[in-house]
Amino acid sequence: MNPLLLQELVRQALAEDLAWGDITTEALIPPGVSLRAQARAREAGVVAGLPVFAEAFRQLSSSISVSFCVCDGTRVGPGQVLAEVTGEARAILMGERVALNLLQHLSGIATTTAQYVAALEGLPTRILDTRKTTPGLRMLEKYAVRIGGGLNHRYCLADAVLIKDNHLAILAAQGIGLSEAVRRARAAVSPMVRIEVEVENAEDAVRAAEAGADIVMLDNMSLAEMRRAVEAIGGRALVEASGNVTLETVRQVAETGVDYISVGALTRSRKGLDIGLDVVR
Amino acid sequence: MNPLLLQELVRQALAEDLAWGDITTEALIPPGVSLRAQARAREAGVVAGLPVFAEAFRQLSSSISVSFCVCDGTRVGPGQVLAEVTGEARAILMGERVALNLLQHLSGIATTTAQYVAALEGLPTRILDTRKTTPGLRMLEKYAVRIGGGLNHRYCLADAVLIKDNHLAILAAQGIGLSEAVRRARAAVSPMVRIEVEVENAEDAVRAAEAGADIVMLDNMSLAEMRRAVEAIGGRALVEASGNVTLETVRQVAETGVDYISVGALTRSRKGLDIGLDVVR
Amino acid sequence: MNPLLLQELVRQALAEDLAWGDITTEALIPPGVSLRAQARAREAGVVAGLPVFAEAFRQLSSSISVSFCVCDGTRVGPGQVLAEVTGEARAILMGERVALNLLQHLSGIATTTAQYVAALEGLPTRILDTRKTTPGLRMLEKYAVRIGGGLNHRYCLADAVLIKDNHLAILAAQGIGLSEAVRRARAAVSPMVRIEVEVENAEDAVRAAEAGADIVMLDNMSLAEMRRAVEAIGGRALVEASGNVTLETVRQVAETGVDYISVGALTRSRKGLDIGLDVVR
Amino acid sequence: MNPLLLQELVRQALAEDLAWGDITTEALIPPGVSLRAQARAREAGVVAGLPVFAEAFRQLSSSISVSFCVCDGTRVGPGQVLAEVTGEARAILMGERVALNLLQHLSGIATTTAQYVAALEGLPTRILDTRKTTPGLRMLEKYAVRIGGGLNHRYCLADAVLIKDNHLAILAAQGIGLSEAVRRARAAVSPMVRIEVEVENAEDAVRAAEAGADIVMLDNMSLAEMRRAVEAIGGRALVEASGNVTLETVRQVAETGVDYISVGALTRSRKGLDIGLDVVR
Amino acid sequence: MNPLLLQELVRQALAEDLAWGDITTEALIPPGVSLRAQARAREAGVVAGLPVFAEAFRQLSSSISVSFCVCDGTRVGPGQVLAEVTGEARAILMGERVALNLLQHLSGIATTTAQYVAALEGLPTRILDTRKTTPGLRMLEKYAVRIGGGLNHRYCLADAVLIKDNHLAILAAQGIGLSEAVRRARAAVSPMVRIEVEVENAEDAVRAAEAGADIVMLDNMSLAEMRRAVEAIGGRALVEASGNVTLETVRQVAETGVDYISVGALTRSRKGLDIGLDVVR
Amino acid sequence: MNPLLLQELVRQALAEDLAWGDITTEALIPPGVSLRAQARAREAGVVAGLPVFAEAFRQLSSSISVSFCVCDGTRVGPGQVLAEVTGEARAILMGERVALNLLQHLSGIATTTAQYVAALEGLPTRILDTRKTTPGLRMLEKYAVRIGGGLNHRYCLADAVLIKDNHLAILAAQGIGLSEAVRRARAAVSPMVRIEVEVENAEDAVRAAEAGADIVMLDNMSLAEMRRAVEAIGGRALVEASGNVTLETVRQVAETGVDYISVGALTRSRKGLDIGLDVVR
Repeated sequence: MNPLLLQELVRQALAEDLAWGDITTEALIPPGVSLRAQARAREAGVVAGLPVFAEAFRQLSSSISVSFCVCDGTRVGPGQVLAEVTGEARAILMGERVALNLLQHLSGIATTTAQYVAALEGLPTRILDTRKTTPGLRMLEKYAVRIGGGLNHRYCLADAVLIKDNHLAILAAQGIGLSEAVRRARAAVSPMVRIEVEVENAEDAVRAAEAGADIVMLDNMSLAEMRRAVEAIGGRALVEASGNVTLETVRQVAETGVDYISVGALTRSRKGLDIGLDVVR
Repeated sequence: MNPLLLQELVRQALAEDLAWGDITTEALIPPGVSLRAQARAREAGVVAGLPVFAEAFRQLSSSISVSFCVCDGTRVGPGQVLAEVTGEARAILMGERVALNLLQHLSGIATTTAQYVAALEGLPTRILDTRKTTPGLRMLEKYAVRIGGGLNHRYCLADAVLIKDNHLAILAAQGIGLSEAVRRARAAVSPMVRIEVEVENAEDAVRAAEAGADIVMLDNMSLAEMRRAVEAIGGRALVEASGNVTLETVRQVAETGVDYISVGALTRSRKGLDIGLDVVR
Repeated sequence: MNPLLLQELVRQALAEDLAWGDITTEALIPPGVSLRAQARAREAGVVAGLPVFAEAFRQLSSSISVSFCVCDGTRVGPGQVLAEVTGEARAILMGERVALNLLQHLSGIATTTAQYVAALEGLPTRILDTRKTTPGLRMLEKYAVRIGGGLNHRYCLADAVLIKDNHLAILAAQGIGLSEAVRRARAAVSPMVRIEVEVENAEDAVRAAEAGADIVMLDNMSLAEMRRAVEAIGGRALVEASGNVTLETVRQVAETGVDYISVGALTRSRKGLDIGLDVVR
Repeated sequence: MNPLLLQELVRQALAEDLAWGDITTEALIPPGVSLRAQARAREAGVVAGLPVFAEAFRQLSSSISVSFCVCDGTRVGPGQVLAEVTGEARAILMGERVALNLLQHLSGIATTTAQYVAALEGLPTRILDTRKTTPGLRMLEKYAVRIGGGLNHRYCLADAVLIKDNHLAILAAQGIGLSEAVRRARAAVSPMVRIEVEVENAEDAVRAAEAGADIVMLDNMSLAEMRRAVEAIGGRALVEASGNVTLETVRQVAETGVDYISVGALTRSRKGLDIGLDVVR
Repeated sequence: MNPLLLQELVRQALAEDLAWGDITTEALIPPGVSLRAQARAREAGVVAGLPVFAEAFRQLSSSISVSFCVCDGTRVGPGQVLAEVTGEARAILMGERVALNLLQHLSGIATTTAQYVAALEGLPTRILDTRKTTPGLRMLEKYAVRIGGGLNHRYCLADAVLIKDNHLAILAAQGIGLSEAVRRARAAVSPMVRIEVEVENAEDAVRAAEAGADIVMLDNMSLAEMRRAVEAIGGRALVEASGNVTLETVRQVAETGVDYISVGALTRSRKGLDIGLDVVR
Repeated sequence: MNPLLLQELVRQALAEDLAWGDITTEALIPPGVSLRAQARAREAGVVAGLPVFAEAFRQLSSSISVSFCVCDGTRVGPGQVLAEVTGEARAILMGERVALNLLQHLSGIATTTAQYVAALEGLPTRILDTRKTTPGLRMLEKYAVRIGGGLNHRYCLADAVLIKDNHLAILAAQGIGLSEAVRRARAAVSPMVRIEVEVENAEDAVRAAEAGADIVMLDNMSLAEMRRAVEAIGGRALVEASGNVTLETVRQVAETGVDYISVGALTRSRKGLDIGLDVVR
């Protein structure tokens, strides 16, 4: 993660929640009162985002100290203490919601990712995320995916080529086929980026691989078609399965021999891990 | 909604996804190619966020026009066309993911909210959101709650007083009780904000109401205790129920006579409504 | 106050004054020269803004220390030392104007507010500010009002409802009256915000109170009409007097029995308290 | 004025006042309702800031049109219409306060400036502003001074050299005198900037002029001492009088023969010109 | 290019040059005067940056129109007209320097790149840029490289892996060799990014290729060593030559058989193409 | 330099290069590994920008310390160590490119400037820069010019008046001549700014000086014409020579008697001083 971007994202989250101040706390809690509080898991899961949690308090007061009891990636159980926050009560109360919102959200993503990864135990296939992330939080969400054992797919539209059905449809209207599209992309872009092509059948998968695609994405194919595609590609390109994969179906998909499975649900159906901040009296 | 803030949020979302450009589209699609595409629901739900969807394209090219086929708040079915986008193909492809991410996310919130609201049909109790929103997206998410038929609770720490258990615990250590806390808050803050107190039993609920709280929040109480509290308050303050309310339990909670039920799940367990952008050939 | 917003406002003020540097100081004062200087009141008043004053220097150099001789809210006399600044001469000279501009401005507001508050001594009526603040400085100016003993009215258009004559005029053209307007507002907005209605006579004041307005604003009424309105409302709503109140008239207005008097002049006719920064040789 | 900076300042002012929206207007006024309103002076003065007023509405809705009935610099009387605003009622109500705050504030400065300028009628001496401006609004306030007939002094610490008592005191401690200070500054800075020296007696005034200062600032001198200084300088430098000049004393000061008089009160004791926005029914 | 980032970069450039306004133009040129001016090459070269040039004027006034006489990538001769600007004289004079600075700078880069590309005519080797760009202008500079016929290498530290000598040195101290480093990187990063390894001899080149590097960078090798490395790699990875390549040496380097040659000088030794803006009278 | 602006410029440069993180370093180098590295000149020149270099590392990690072995303005030889960086390896590797890009760039400008200054040894004429700077880096580049012994000309369009040929052409079309233009400018702008006029022959030079211009810019004149102009002006104004001056011609130009020579090449043809960062093992 870029530490400066992390600071910026936390700053924006605090700005949104604090606006012109915490009128309850300012009305009731005098400056100078100290507090000790513990972030505690209320359900089992994989923790992610402790540095983000700490940054929220750090920005509000240089007098607050946050010590971690576990580290990002730890699998925790209900009731387990994750971190302890000590310092100015006013600032702790001001930062609590933002710090928890972020920690819960990222831990939820890491937990979900870890479930998908666990479902593939013993297989070489790896879990990928997608660009279906929450606007503004992509860096943090993709970090949480890594913490949960997944790999990141593209970060944005600028770091890799992914030729999708809409690109191919527009090119087809100009008489340009899939193979030519791959060659044009290769000639135009940095040699430092990979090229992936989204295909809907085994024949196009082979065409893409032969034209020089680094990765072929099998989009919403049946298990049988995926198996056919993997075999037809024969190692000439990496293979990614994509489309409505669930925890129930992910292992079957992996057994078709694909190298990667991308799962939008990692960052889309996010419930957050239940974590509370309890004052230690 | 503040139209300038809406623009800013969309700008940040595009900045995150576009970075230094869409290298696939720039490599393959020549400038000047036109496209017509339709945003289409892939499942049933309540639409929210069409102006946000349109803004994403508008920022990328002044040549794109977006026309709405329904308006925010419409209940749509699978396959229904929500909006049509026409213009420069490059810009439409560049903005697609951000526009859809936001529309799906907000429509998901509106849909969930509408389910809670429907569960209370015939009762006067109203559904509230919480501050458990996605950092950076609060204005949009709270808008989606309203579109779904819910009401907003506090927007941030600055617009209303909410005296919570942690505040009361710190004050108690200084010999200050709940009633005195309410009076201190009233004396310190704007007459234009309301004061709410979080309580855990009927006795404190009455104390809060008598001390002048505008609203009393019954936190995680049993149905029986809530009923007792509502009766004891006897209309001297508005009453809000809070804590782990689900679609299954919400009607029972409402039947205790509370005025409001706040539901963190409106903005926390968000799956997004499945909406796609299909090129019209 | 939101500490992050305070930092941001000071940063913008310094950016405006420093631009690409202090060319006088850089040309003449070598790095490494130390200075001790004292902020000293040149007239009597109430101090507000010392943390803002300190922040201006803190941002320019981590080597500067600022110690306060009084605290915000202290009533000071001419010649009294308010704070002492020690450290790098270059940075002190660079920050002086911004630090003083802000301290003078906020202390001026606190001093004016304190005069209005003093004029009501012995009466329960309280002084409110308005949204007639200096663009960009609202948080600081409203803080200065509180330091001077006043209360804040709305912070912005988003935190409370104020139905004004222009709203009512537009609604009237659609056949919607004052009472219905109040009910519509109540149904639409958060239960956490209060609703105020601006009225021009006692009859409308009663209508507003009966329709459920939390506060009724008596706009530019005569003393007699205000007395009539207060009596007619009879405690069913809080009452605020508004419109061209001066130090000369404020006590009479309060004696009509209104709960609050809002005074635009607190933040509009601001002269600043005369405060200088003297080098201690 | 820099048009991009004007846009930015208005954007920030709107952001402060609108926050997440105008909840009153959104609750009560349906989209699509049109309004016509007139900005009208409620007292006599010099108008400044009409383009700023218009920009506030323009940013909120492209459908609003603002037409000016006078232009900046016009001397207007009570009741005179300054501008007419037509368009979407919601946006006009949202922008009203910010647009008026800015127009009132700037017109107040222009009016005050014009009073000082008028007091010098027939004399060659010109009125200058200072850096005692409202943080964040300097560009606009200095524009208003020009509209009122004044000239701007330094905009910021970067665009001209002003050697003040504190600089000279620090240099004196290192054995460097006024003349040497002027020479050092001249050698170090751009030939495109002027050098001014603040002096407290006629002798130093002469020293500064002889050392090559472009302008000599007579700080808080008696009228007699000013006359002596002007004579002694004998045209070798421009002369500026500074320090607690009021409308009552400004003409006498000018008659000492100084070229410029700087008046902090232009931007410091600002009451704002009373201007209202009246709906035209 | 990301159109929103282009706007932002131009906005910042204008902010820097305009500060609080163009005092010369505002003092002398009345509003409403129109101007027609032509951007004209004063030497031969390849044009790049016309949309950036136009954006600078567009931001200053909606009344200015810019029409292009050539397009980016055109090879122009001295005296050739590149674009014509018509509209408000004030705004054209305000934007001239920024518009020209950017157009000259980018055209200079495109021209230099085109020289390197021309030197390789007939060979398959392609020219790459580096990250030795001007802070803040990377997107524009890399665009100019593409316009000149070059390819972009990495955009930033986030979009591809480049294992350099410093990484290898640190890993070596922990007993980790080059092959293991490549494998660790592959396991950790997105499958959508390529991995390059910087090597200093043919043996390491082979090791990198065998460990799965997509590209091997031959750093500062002699021509003979490069030839040896290319042969040893034998097509198992792409090969890039790097280090102090000049126009004189670039063809010899290409003849060693490398696929790419990266040239820091494309963006480092930039003179700018001489282009003027002439008023058409 | 404004220290806050320096921080901001470095922050933007790091944001550009780091984007969402350094994926190579994060994949390979564990947190907690320490590094010691030295910035070392690879060719002779004048160093400028060490505080900028240090700031880049400081922003990335509070644990990094940078110690300077020379100071800005030192003339160094190849191999000389300029600074030593110690601390967290990850952060040093992340900041290296930005820190070096800036240090190389600014040292290149200082070195070039010093060459021009040296060419005038023994003459009173001084070297000036221009506004032909890199967008976004003007403050730093103008600082480097001062470090190299040059003086700054205008910083931006707001801090001094420069009446150029285009201004005069537009005014001429309205029947306003050069002398009147100078008088109008003087009457309109701050007495704290100087006025310069660009002229193309000795006659206009005299006219400008007589009308009160502080400086006359001789634009692209022959040496003979410059001599004639200097003589004709006779000390009534400062004289600046401008236009395509090179290291070869600069001394001859100075010998015409002009006070200043402005050289666009100081900031335009910038190669950067070759400086590397070597890990100390």
